Amino acid sequence: MAHDAALFLARHKIDGVATSEFADAWRRRYGPAMEEVRSGRRAFVRLDVLHRENLLAVLGDYGVDAASIPAEEVDGLNLAWHRLDPWPDSLSGLTRLKATRIIAPLSNGNIVLMLDMAKRAGIPWDAILGAEVVQAYKPMPEAYLRTADVLGLRPEQMCLVAAHNSDLAAARQCGYKTAFVARPTEHGPGQTTDLKAEADWDVIARDFNDLADKVGA
Amino acid sequence: MAHDAALFLARHKIDGVATSEFADAWRRRYGPAMEEVRSGRRAFVRLDVLHRENLLAVLGDYGVDAASIPAEEVDGLNLAWHRLDPWPDSLSGLTRLKATRIIAPLSNGNIVLMLDMAKRAGIPWDAILGAEVVQAYKPMPEAYLRTADVLGLRPEQMCLVAAHNSDLAAARQCGYKTAFVARPTEHGPGQTTDLKAEADWDVIARDFNDLADKVGA
Repeated sequence: MAHDAALFLARHKIDGVATSEFADAWRRRYGPAMEEVRSGRRAFVRLDVLHRENLLAVLGDYGVDAASIPAEEVDGLNLAWHRLDPWPDSLSGLTRLKATRIIAPLSNGNIVLMLDMAKRAGIPWDAILGAEVVQAYKPMPEAYLRTADVLGLRPEQMCLVAAHNSDLAAARQCGYKTAFVARPTEHGPGQTTDLKAEADWDVIARDFNDLADKVGA
Repeated sequence: MAHDAALFLARHKIDGVATSEFADAWRRRYGPAMEEVRSGRRAFVRLDVLHRENLLAVLGDYGVDAASIPAEEVDGLNLAWHRLDPWPDSLSGLTRLKATRIIAPLSNGNIVLMLDMAKRAGIPWDAILGAEVVQAYKPMPEAYLRTADVLGLRPEQMCLVAAHNSDLAAARQCGYKTAFVARPTEHGPGQTTDLKAEADWDVIARDFNDLADKVGA
C-alpha cells in the first residue's frame, strides 16, 4: 500500500506530503464512509467504491485536481487494497482448518477485493462471503446473521476469527463463537489498539497455526 | 440424486412410484418455481428454498403427508443437490484455467449448494458467484450484468462456459464471450436437448480439458 502510494505521489509530482501521512489520511476516511451506509443514509455500495471516493477526496485535501489524473491511474492506486499480503502463518493455518471446516472471509472488503488478494497469495477460501454478499457492513448484526443464513447455519455454528476485539464483540452478540488472533503490527510498529484479547473469547491464538492447533485441525 | 431419492422413498414406505419418476417430478417444478422470482411475482429466495418447497409439493402430489416426515429428513434429501459429482474432466480443466483466469460458477444454485459441491469434490473456484450474490436468476440479464459488475469487469471481459445453449444466448445478449461444453448425458441416456452447439459460440469444446487447450490455458 505505502509502496503503491509512494509511486503514485511521485508520478504525479504531489510534493510535500509523506507517503505514510497520505495513506493514513486515506484510511481515516474508511470508517466514516462506511458509517454513511450503516446508518442507512446511503444505500449499500461496495468497499471499492468507497475507497475510490475517499481517494479522490484525499487528493482534493492535498490540493490536487483529481480530474487532472487519468481514471486508470486512480483505479490503479485504488487496487492497492487488492494486493495486500497475507500474514506469514495464514496460508498454512487456513489450509489445515479447511480440511475439516468451511473457511470464508467475513470481511467488509468486497468480493473482487478479497478474490484478487486470495488469488495473488494462494489463500484457499471455500467461498468469499462478507459485506457485499449480505449488503451490510460489520459491525451491524445483519452482516453476521445473514452470513450464517447464507450458509444455512445457525449463528452458534459459526466462528468469527478476527484481530479486532470490537468485531468479535459484535459477532458474539449475534451468537457466533469467537476466536482472537493478535496482529499487533497491523497498523505499524506504534500500534496501540487490539494488542491483546480484551474478553474471554472462545479461542485466543497467537496465529493461524496456533488456532489450528487449539481447535484440533 | 436418484440414489438419495430411492433411499428416502424406501425409508418412508412411499410405494408405487419409481425413483426416476419422483426425481423427474421434483425437477420439473424447478423452472416454474424460479419463474415466480424472475417474473417479479415473488421476492428473490435462494434455490435451496425453492427445491425444498418443490419437494414438499411433489410429496403431496404422491399422496404423502409431508408433515408426517421429520424436517431433518426433508432437509437431508434436499441436500442431495449439494452432493452432485463433477464431470470427470472438470477438476483438471478448471485447475488449468485457474492458473491464468478467474474461475467462478455463475449458477442459479445458491452459495452453500455450490460450496458443498466444490468442497466435497475439490473444485478450486476462486469465488462462488451467481444468482444468490446478485439476487437474480438466469437467464435474466441482471444475473449476467451484475456478476460482471461484482468483478469490476465489463461484460466483454467475461466468458460464460455452459452446457446449455439458451444460457449462452442470454449471456451473449449481455455482451459476454461464450464457450459451449457439451454434456449430452446430463439428463440421462435419452437426452434430446443441448446435444451440440446451436450457434457460433466463441469456443466449442468437448470438455474442460479441451476448453483449456483451445484458450491456451
